[in-house]
Amino acid sequence: MVKIAVMGHGVVGSGVVEVLMKNHEGIERRAKEEIQVKYILDLRDFPDLPYADKFVKDVNIILNDPEVEIVVECMGGVNPAFDFCMNSLKAGKSVVTSNKELVAARGQELLEVAKAKNLNFLFEASVGGGIPIIRPLAQCMAANEIDAVAGILNGTTNFILTKMITENMPFDEALQLAQNLGYAEKNPTADVDGHDACRKICILASLVLGKHVYPNDVYVEGIRNITLEDVRYADKFNAAIKLIGLFKVMPDGKLLINVAPRFVSKTSPLAGVSDVFNAICVIGDATDEVMFYGKGAGKLPTASAVVADVIDCVKHRVARKYLYWAPAEEGMIADYHDEPCSMYLRLCGKSSDELKNIANELCRECIFTEGINPDEIAIITDVATYAEQENIAKKFLARGVNVISAMRTLSR
Amino acid sequence: MVKIAVMGHGVVGSGVVEVLMKNHEGIERRAKEEIQVKYILDLRDFPDLPYADKFVKDVNIILNDPEVEIVVECMGGVNPAFDFCMNSLKAGKSVVTSNKELVAARGQELLEVAKAKNLNFLFEASVGGGIPIIRPLAQCMAANEIDAVAGILNGTTNFILTKMITENMPFDEALQLAQNLGYAEKNPTADVDGHDACRKICILASLVLGKHVYPNDVYVEGIRNITLEDVRYADKFNAAIKLIGLFKVMPDGKLLINVAPRFVSKTSPLAGVSDVFNAICVIGDATDEVMFYGKGAGKLPTASAVVADVIDCVKHRVARKYLYWAPAEEGMIADYHDEPCSMYLRLCGKSSDELKNIANELCRECIFTEGINPDEIAIITDVATYAEQENIAKKFLARGVNVISAMRTLSR
Repeated sequence: MVKIAVMGHGVVGSGVVEVLMKNHEGIERRAKEEIQVKYILDLRDFPDLPYADKFVKDVNIILNDPEVEIVVECMGGVNPAFDFCMNSLKAGKSVVTSNKELVAARGQELLEVAKAKNLNFLFEASVGGGIPIIRPLAQCMAANEIDAVAGILNGTTNFILTKMITENMPFDEALQLAQNLGYAEKNPTADVDGHDACRKICILASLVLGKHVYPNDVYVEGIRNITLEDVRYADKFNAAIKLIGLFKVMPDGKLLINVAPRFVSKTSPLAGVSDVFNAICVIGDATDEVMFYGKGAGKLPTASAVVADVIDCVKHRVARKYLYWAPAEEGMIADYHDEPCSMYLRLCGKSSDELKNIANELCRECIFTEGINPDEIAIITDVATYAEQENIAKKFLARGVNVISAMRTLSR
Repeated sequence: MVKIAVMGHGVVGSGVVEVLMKNHEGIERRAKEEIQVKYILDLRDFPDLPYADKFVKDVNIILNDPEVEIVVECMGGVNPAFDFCMNSLKAGKSVVTSNKELVAARGQELLEVAKAKNLNFLFEASVGGGIPIIRPLAQCMAANEIDAVAGILNGTTNFILTKMITENMPFDEALQLAQNLGYAEKNPTADVDGHDACRKICILASLVLGKHVYPNDVYVEGIRNITLEDVRYADKFNAAIKLIGLFKVMPDGKLLINVAPRFVSKTSPLAGVSDVFNAICVIGDATDEVMFYGKGAGKLPTASAVVADVIDCVKHRVARKYLYWAPAEEGMIADYHDEPCSMYLRLCGKSSDELKNIANELCRECIFTEGINPDEIAIITDVATYAEQENIAKKFLARGVNVISAMRTLSR
């Protein structure tokens, strides 16, 4: 019998207790031991729950109880989650968390202590909810050099973009709908401005690179400025707009990493990922492109990923699972201006013939499409660094051309 | 240093040696030990290879060398691969294989001996090539009850169907093209008639059920009879025809398992999987739908999955990876007539008005579409058991209606 404590009885924490109770038999068979929730830490009272007697309000009860071998942290936020996890590890307990903010901000310190104390610190649920990605990525990495990862990592923004694409719904209305359906928070900044996706791509990058990648070092663009016209132009270029978290290892070994809306060609499986679904494409030198797809959030999918980690802790009490990355290093992140990319540009301010002529002059090679309004065109520029693309945009302005929108494309 | 032997130097075997050499450093870092190929078993000579000195023709050299800790079997076929693997296990060596035919036919016996001798018998590459699926499925299963698995498991047939769908190419021509491109064998039976997909779904089902599921016990239908008209009707119903390997656990605990072409709704991510790509959807009670996507075959993707297994063997020399299923049990497979399903039926032999009237009489509820030829309609029937669906088809015949084609749909 293994005794565990669950910290936080919100959506995920209560889901963990539910999955552990509902699938009790199967879990016991697979873990080869009974798993019992001894404590649930929450400041609120839940007197009507059948397991009301397990609730405690003082974290020290858990930390000081040597019977508790595994702590499951589902509180969210960096503080006090970090202290609680760190103190659990220092007290000799393995830790499982679903908290992407914590792992992205301070995962390295926790992994370091877990390693030193020969304990597990697992966080499968922190990226992609119920989609197994941390472990398959570690497995892919075993025999492959990972060249790039590109993912739709935030369900809320993907829901909004899907509504814009399939129902021609403007951004504000789609955001409102997402809020009404409970997909978006009242303050939607973390989702809509790309910070949530950024934390997740940082976790995946840290794992692949073997060094901690901090969200603050990553260039992030959200989806607030995307218009229905952009969505229509994407369609004309046989693409769909998706918020993509991306990293690539550059030829000089630096990590190119960013979060931005991009034109994704409909020939890519990522373009077909709609609604609140998430998907992560991993490109390895031997596997080529492998994609993992599923619900990136939600009570039970996320809880099941947490429970799978708990089972893994139980099965690996002696032989620690190898999951680790080193501290960040100065200069390891490439300047985002160095990314080689094509750009979508929506141009107006002259007749469409004049616009085409100027585009032909300023860009080596570009693809045109007719404007959806008179005296307007859209182009996809040839591949160049983002810095060069910004230069081209400036040249358009100098020639009296108005660049209404600009967006990167996703390329291999 | 761990010494291994590779049996078979065909496409996969040579790929394994290539990946081990090319990614030597990264692999050593992850395995925490050097991995050295000591022998390669092949009846042919390869005098020009830089590692020509490693080739042997007598399996006993490998079996009798106590230095060889891991045997990688990439010969294909059940014999002599089975004897070679079994004797390797009996000699105390862990075994990694990419051989789906072997695992589907005799995996249980090999797992039994591996378990008894505390060795690993791993076969990630046998299903889905480079797509990590065996391990993520085992992980999904840890916290979930798996309700169903549906997969596009054969790249050749998916390539043929994609050509039929996107280029209106008839079956024979698409098969010929697949053969010219090297995707299909001269004798395409194993692919086209569904046997290859059957072996793979059997392996996944054995893993989930915990009991060996034999290909001979599985109902299999191939894609030879699919016409371009069927493809067009699928499109009219907003679906795509895919060869689907499927299993579900029925309410009575029996396993419903089959391989058949099906109408797959375009709202399912499986419908968008094209060309030689494979994809496997796993539906768990907590995760809901999770999909794994990638190249299901090919030298390097498959080899990388084999090498990942080798690394896992190296890391788990003491603590065995838990992968096991018990022998088959009498009566564990459901009769394929018991599957609840909807059917696509293409009907002719009367005026389209008469056909609609008869369909309304014979089916409780069905969806129509206008015929692509005069005096012809297509319908999707309401859900009923396959036995009842066969009955409905007989009733159509009795009323003078010709059922030109019939195909199941894929439903949750």
